[in-house]
Amino acid sequence: MRHKLFAVVAATFALSACVNTTDNAAASVKSNSAKPKNIIMIVADGMGPAFTTAYRNFRDDPATPVVEPVIFDDIFVGNASTYPAQVSGYVTDSAASATALAAGIKSYNGAIGVDVNKQPVTSVLQRAKQLGLKTGIAVTSQIVHATPAAYMAHNESRQNYNALADSYFDDRIDGNFVANVMLGGGTKFFERTDRNVTAQFIEAGYTYVDTYDKLATVPAGENVLGLFAPVGLPWVLDDSRKNRLAYLTKHAIKHLENDNGFFLLVEASQVDWAGHSNDIAAAMGEMHDLNLTLELLYDYVQSHPDTLVVLTADHSTGGLTIGANGDYRWDPKWLQNLQQSPAEIAKALSDADDPVSMVSTAFGFDLTDEEAAQVIALAQLASLKDKLQGIQTLLDVRSNTGWTTSGHTGVDVEVFAFGAASNHFLGQYDNTYIAKKLFNLLPAESKTASQ
Amino acid sequence: MRHKLFAVVAATFALSACVNTTDNAAASVKSNSAKPKNIIMIVADGMGPAFTTAYRNFRDDPATPVVEPVIFDDIFVGNASTYPAQVSGYVTDSAASATALAAGIKSYNGAIGVDVNKQPVTSVLQRAKQLGLKTGIAVTSQIVHATPAAYMAHNESRQNYNALADSYFDDRIDGNFVANVMLGGGTKFFERTDRNVTAQFIEAGYTYVDTYDKLATVPAGENVLGLFAPVGLPWVLDDSRKNRLAYLTKHAIKHLENDNGFFLLVEASQVDWAGHSNDIAAAMGEMHDLNLTLELLYDYVQSHPDTLVVLTADHSTGGLTIGANGDYRWDPKWLQNLQQSPAEIAKALSDADDPVSMVSTAFGFDLTDEEAAQVIALAQLASLKDKLQGIQTLLDVRSNTGWTTSGHTGVDVEVFAFGAASNHFLGQYDNTYIAKKLFNLLPAESKTASQ
Ligand SMILES: [Zn+2]
Ligand SMILES: [Zn+2]
Repeated sequence: MRHKLFAVVAATFALSACVNTTDNAAASVKSNSAKPKNIIMIVADGMGPAFTTAYRNFRDDPATPVVEPVIFDDIFVGNASTYPAQVSGYVTDSAASATALAAGIKSYNGAIGVDVNKQPVTSVLQRAKQLGLKTGIAVTSQIVHATPAAYMAHNESRQNYNALADSYFDDRIDGNFVANVMLGGGTKFFERTDRNVTAQFIEAGYTYVDTYDKLATVPAGENVLGLFAPVGLPWVLDDSRKNRLAYLTKHAIKHLENDNGFFLLVEASQVDWAGHSNDIAAAMGEMHDLNLTLELLYDYVQSHPDTLVVLTADHSTGGLTIGANGDYRWDPKWLQNLQQSPAEIAKALSDADDPVSMVSTAFGFDLTDEEAAQVIALAQLASLKDKLQGIQTLLDVRSNTGWTTSGHTGVDVEVFAFGAASNHFLGQYDNTYIAKKLFNLLPAESKTASQ
Repeated sequence: MRHKLFAVVAATFALSACVNTTDNAAASVKSNSAKPKNIIMIVADGMGPAFTTAYRNFRDDPATPVVEPVIFDDIFVGNASTYPAQVSGYVTDSAASATALAAGIKSYNGAIGVDVNKQPVTSVLQRAKQLGLKTGIAVTSQIVHATPAAYMAHNESRQNYNALADSYFDDRIDGNFVANVMLGGGTKFFERTDRNVTAQFIEAGYTYVDTYDKLATVPAGENVLGLFAPVGLPWVLDDSRKNRLAYLTKHAIKHLENDNGFFLLVEASQVDWAGHSNDIAAAMGEMHDLNLTLELLYDYVQSHPDTLVVLTADHSTGGLTIGANGDYRWDPKWLQNLQQSPAEIAKALSDADDPVSMVSTAFGFDLTDEEAAQVIALAQLASLKDKLQGIQTLLDVRSNTGWTTSGHTGVDVEVFAFGAASNHFLGQYDNTYIAKKLFNLLPAESKTASQ
């Protein structure tokens, strides 16, 4: 009786709403109930609830008594459970959750677009292509990483990166390639001695680019393969573009816009990587790039109200907590002036003439005597991993950041949405609901193929 | 422009909603927009997002492939930030957050119903009393603990329990006592050698009870002081009533119902205490008592649709994570058959003839040889605290539960609501919004005083 979640949520808003009548530009961006022409699905990999609160605090202006809202606060709509198929327990990996978000079914940890019996399941991106929409992916990992792969392909294991790259070229949907635009990292998997998938895409008419600047020169409406790194892109803290995800997203849209509409998957892939590494500075950097992407898309939807944007996380990573060790304190100010990632600082340690001043410059604040002694000790360590942990610990202690794991945790994740039909994502539900609803929001019948 | 959160949220629902028309009993429980006659505010102290997800998993029926929704899933409406006044940073204590939830203003950690200048601020409970509603509190801590105290009184420090007990008797609102019904623990603070506040309440016409059974015998509509323990109530796992909060809530309502309406504060106080102790078994027990309370209130609102129920947490406690230590696993099944709390098991360790079989019986599962050896070692320890930590660690390892702190963390908390005007609590906002909205939802003018 009580557990008809979605029906009840819908009814709630139906009953409660007609008392207000407001219409202004912001409200029309926030929601209208028409079927969307374009759908932009964003996965913030690993972004559990602590990451969004931490990011708000990280952006806080200390000159005011309130903590200023960030764009996440404006577009929050719901919460989703993330557990995988029963065989994998209560804590999902990115493959199972991406399969849930893409295809609407629970599968085992490691599954890429296949069910528990390893049978292929259709993703919303693939369905959009069947229906004649243009499709694309824009991510900061290699483009064959678990999340984009679950939208693009089918494989019994996320580890099969080469096979996934092959699938991106070999698979056809009604004779068409799966995606019109693919932007991210991954030359290592596409340009191999046994097969050059990049060359095959070029042969097939795709424009290939390997730098951000070249991407900007491609005329609108092209099919594009853009691979900007051997595997994942650099941490945004170290990248030449401090808005790399927003930039890739903007260019993906430029090439996808067409009369039939498009489906674009965007992934802020490296929030998760920062979580795995227990790196709060890298996490805040990746969150900021995502924030810039959302601000871009919010403006886009103002002028394109026929577009739906949905953002969620696939799970939380690292067991991040805002405060730790009995101390009622979190101090993000120590993370706000970093000049490079802790990973790059760790790499530079051994060769630095003056490690203390190098670290101090990179952190953007003076070290205490105790911290300086720790840095000198770190510089002597042989293992880069140990050096990195030492640098991260310095920032964890300053900021009083807590972590419980190098892996994932099972907490529900937030859902954010705006634009056409975003009202469908209000409330509490399972992550499979998001895919099911997106399937419903795709056109009922095929359009003339866009390619 | 973008950051007018509440206006935009309200507009969203206004625009999106008129497309659906559904009316059924469930929907009318979920929301109607009339001003409520009765308001029941529930604070689940320390219940960050990981606690509700953990509880859903804890209740999962392993015979089905899905994780069954629990009542929290049906009534989820929003997210609230919890940070205290700037002087206290980003991580709140229960006093500052209770003052925010009760009075709608940010104050310093430790503040009970006073602002940053230590000036008293009016709570929604006090305002309700001014307006002629009956008022009450039903909690599992001592009734002068931070959360209820911030609704009832004003003090510069939460530590002043005796002064707070005195306030509960000495303060008057238009000549009336602050609350008609006060149920929880705290004889230590009310029945002192220097002053017997309980006796004064009896003298003033309050019915006093000190057992759950006696509470049931009090005729409806009395003014009641019920103190069932010297300080806080026992853990629900050890209590004679496994639904003690639901029971106290039911009886509070019985005495508060009247033509003018009532305001009742309910607190699941000990979710927080389980978090401080890093005790996942106690946490799940307290969550279950809260769950029973919500089920009771959900049924109550079915027959009393003029009642609003709002539930939130004041902050998260313990840095709880669902999974830890690199292992993608959380196993709540080891927490489902506990016969008593880890604290009681630890107390019983030294005197047990056979500690291993005692612990095994209390846990409800057989111990491995390694666990048995650990239990034997624990039984030799002098410190009860160390024994308790050992017992808790056994369950943390079995369940793979993570913790980062004995204190609080700063993550946003969930908000749940149902009944009259519950639609006002949709979306993302600061915790002060909850009090501000409740003030708005109280009657505009004073009714004939109920007492
Ligand atoms: Zn991951
Ligand atoms: Zn606490």
